[in-house]
Amino acid sequence: MKLVEDKIRELGKIGEGDVLKVDSFLNHQMDPMLLANMGEEFFRLFEKEGVTKILTIEASGIGVAMMAAYKFGVPMVFAKKTKTNNIFADVYRSTVESYTHKKTYEIIVSKEFINPGDRILVVDDFLAKGSALLALISLVKEAGAEVVGCGVVIEKAYQGGGKIVRDMGIRVESLARIKEMSLEGGITYC
Amino acid sequence: MKLVEDKIRELGKIGEGDVLKVDSFLNHQMDPMLLANMGEEFFRLFEKEGVTKILTIEASGIGVAMMAAYKFGVPMVFAKKTKTNNIFADVYRSTVESYTHKKTYEIIVSKEFINPGDRILVVDDFLAKGSALLALISLVKEAGAEVVGCGVVIEKAYQGGGKIVRDMGIRVESLARIKEMSLEGGITYC
Repeated sequence: MKLVEDKIRELGKIGEGDVLKVDSFLNHQMDPMLLANMGEEFFRLFEKEGVTKILTIEASGIGVAMMAAYKFGVPMVFAKKTKTNNIFADVYRSTVESYTHKKTYEIIVSKEFINPGDRILVVDDFLAKGSALLALISLVKEAGAEVVGCGVVIEKAYQGGGKIVRDMGIRVESLARIKEMSLEGGITYC
Repeated sequence: MKLVEDKIRELGKIGEGDVLKVDSFLNHQMDPMLLANMGEEFFRLFEKEGVTKILTIEASGIGVAMMAAYKFGVPMVFAKKTKTNNIFADVYRSTVESYTHKKTYEIIVSKEFINPGDRILVVDDFLAKGSALLALISLVKEAGAEVVGCGVVIEKAYQGGGKIVRDMGIRVESLARIKEMSLEGGITYC
């Protein structure tokens, strides 16, 4: 999506350790109009899939997932990173290995909110090694629901997560697919 | 706002320990149409205040703050609960005492995203003892910006946080103000 690639060119900052900082519009400060455009693009890409629910993971996925849910007119559910004492019901659990934060954490979704028959579009801000997407897909399968696809804002294609998910037969659509990225050479898109 | 009171009546569940569980539409699963209505209501209430930015706190505030930002046409910033290594810049810091989760945690906002001259509307899903709002207000003041008001979805008025913030001279608008709540007696609104 040219709009997203342009925004990354304009405002993204490449940092040490393969970090792409886009926190001025995507995952700390959020640009609601841009995120609405992303939501519309996900709707255009997946509108024939009979999506019943959008699933994401806290916190930075919530903004774009919210705008996507608004465009689809379906509920959005976000997986929580720790068990809090205001969830009563049984939960589905899965594990994410975060390379950015260098730790492993558990995510949960209340069993009330994913049901057999649900057709789930998984949405997230980043796809790198794929750990978060794989954990979300695992939750959906455990619930007996179907993943109709994954909508990602920025995919670091060279990190291989997208290939893993696509090799599972799951459709992945990324609004900006980065082929190469370096401090010196900047960003090349696929 | 009758719509929110009705939704709480329909779907809210009162739990032990003064917990009001609204995670089927507000803070785990989110209803985008309802949240859009909330965003519109905040816009109606604060549209004359020259709001330049919406500020909230991860994770459950992001959905409603996003829809409010969309209606206002201004950026949304969410305070993060821990320092992650993909924030490079200096940050404003403040401390929140969470009674729900029985712990104290630090919140941060990158100094890039709140500036002197900003007119900030603070938005959150819940207001109880006020610790989260007070921490957000403190961040805004530290940045030399102005809090034009707080927009809250559900205020537990009997917990006193709303009074503390209003006594500071800050306008607080809550879409549902709970006067009393108990397992036996249910919910009474102000």
